[in-house]
Amino acid sequence: MPSVPASSIHTSTLPAMNECWQEALHLAQREAHARGSYLVLNTLPEGCFYYLEKGRLTILHGAADGSVQNMLYMEPGSLINVADALGRQVTDFRDAGCQFYCFTDVVLWRFEGALLQDEEFVRTHPHLVVNLMTSLGVKLLAMHSSLSYSNTDALTKICRFCLNMSQASGGATELVPHISQSELANLFGMHRATLLRSIQALKQRGVISELTRECLRIENMEELRRLAMQ
Amino acid sequence: MPSVPASSIHTSTLPAMNECWQEALHLAQREAHARGSYLVLNTLPEGCFYYLEKGRLTILHGAADGSVQNMLYMEPGSLINVADALGRQVTDFRDAGCQFYCFTDVVLWRFEGALLQDEEFVRTHPHLVVNLMTSLGVKLLAMHSSLSYSNTDALTKICRFCLNMSQASGGATELVPHISQSELANLFGMHRATLLRSIQALKQRGVISELTRECLRIENMEELRRLAMQ
Repeated sequence: MPSVPASSIHTSTLPAMNECWQEALHLAQREAHARGSYLVLNTLPEGCFYYLEKGRLTILHGAADGSVQNMLYMEPGSLINVADALGRQVTDFRDAGCQFYCFTDVVLWRFEGALLQDEEFVRTHPHLVVNLMTSLGVKLLAMHSSLSYSNTDALTKICRFCLNMSQASGGATELVPHISQSELANLFGMHRATLLRSIQALKQRGVISELTRECLRIENMEELRRLAMQ
Repeated sequence: MPSVPASSIHTSTLPAMNECWQEALHLAQREAHARGSYLVLNTLPEGCFYYLEKGRLTILHGAADGSVQNMLYMEPGSLINVADALGRQVTDFRDAGCQFYCFTDVVLWRFEGALLQDEEFVRTHPHLVVNLMTSLGVKLLAMHSSLSYSNTDALTKICRFCLNMSQASGGATELVPHISQSELANLFGMHRATLLRSIQALKQRGVISELTRECLRIENMEELRRLAMQ
């Protein structure tokens, strides 16, 4: 399995981790979805999980007020909806607001969730099972990280994010975040205007001079750390 | 595996899901920790996971300001620290604030994380692997649920919690939450005083008349739903 940089976890943007599952696609059904589609997968009568062959999507939670909380951004070569497929073997819990949004045209391969309960499949495909478990571990770490700073104000969140990204790059003061402002706002569950206002405030205080997809530049690390720890 | 009620997910209080791992304790090392201990497990040189044989603990994230964000409450018969053991095979990410807190005296059995990468172990213990994967799925659902309402104000959080708990009991207006006010406050990442103030406000408006470990009583479901959806 390729290595997952710490920055991927801080941006909840997971790289391809499950490409070895390509060898099992003969057990799956292909389906295509157009860019802009919302997929509600956890209401299907039987639980399924999917291999994302092509395209980019996000798992999100939409609230009744129209606001969006993004959870994870997924790249091709990833298994998705695995928690639903596994969890529904033992619980009636369904998260009514949970869905996937397709940023691009998407090709998925649908596996029956029962496959993951099938001891014969586990015995005969141990490398796929080890791979799946490991990617579940990484997803849990990413969700954990998001949750750990969910209950702080907007400015603190952004400072912690910048500090974490710097530490993930060995203390760099200039780096490429690879996440857009609107993706970041949705990941933090805040409006884009709130994000922009906070970035502006940090610029005026000389803490950072840029935070875009292409560039995070930190000007005053000590002050950043102080604000992040509030 | 025993079934996990939806209310367990809403309270992030997971029942025993991994009791079959008792049969593998000969592969593990026993350790005991006193009530009140904080365990930092993700800084051990090699990744390990643990079977919780006795006692009750919580996985939490402590912030620099002393506030606490609880993630999951774990009961005996559970595997813990699995995400760390799995994830560190592929990522250098470590959540510096992540620790476990022992509510009681605790007995743990330590397994080497390498066991979960060992294809021979997977081939010969498929039932344990299926069990572990399923419990990881449930944990992801619980974290997801917490994250989905993390970025709302205190009153909305409490209303959503009450509504979810009611729906998990078939629409009941009186039920036993099995989670104390201080546990609930830490799960929501808010101060206990904030929780109490919000509960008081809901009582004054006639929405609920009680929210303790023993009893949630809803008086005005329509208004509760309206507030939860804000």
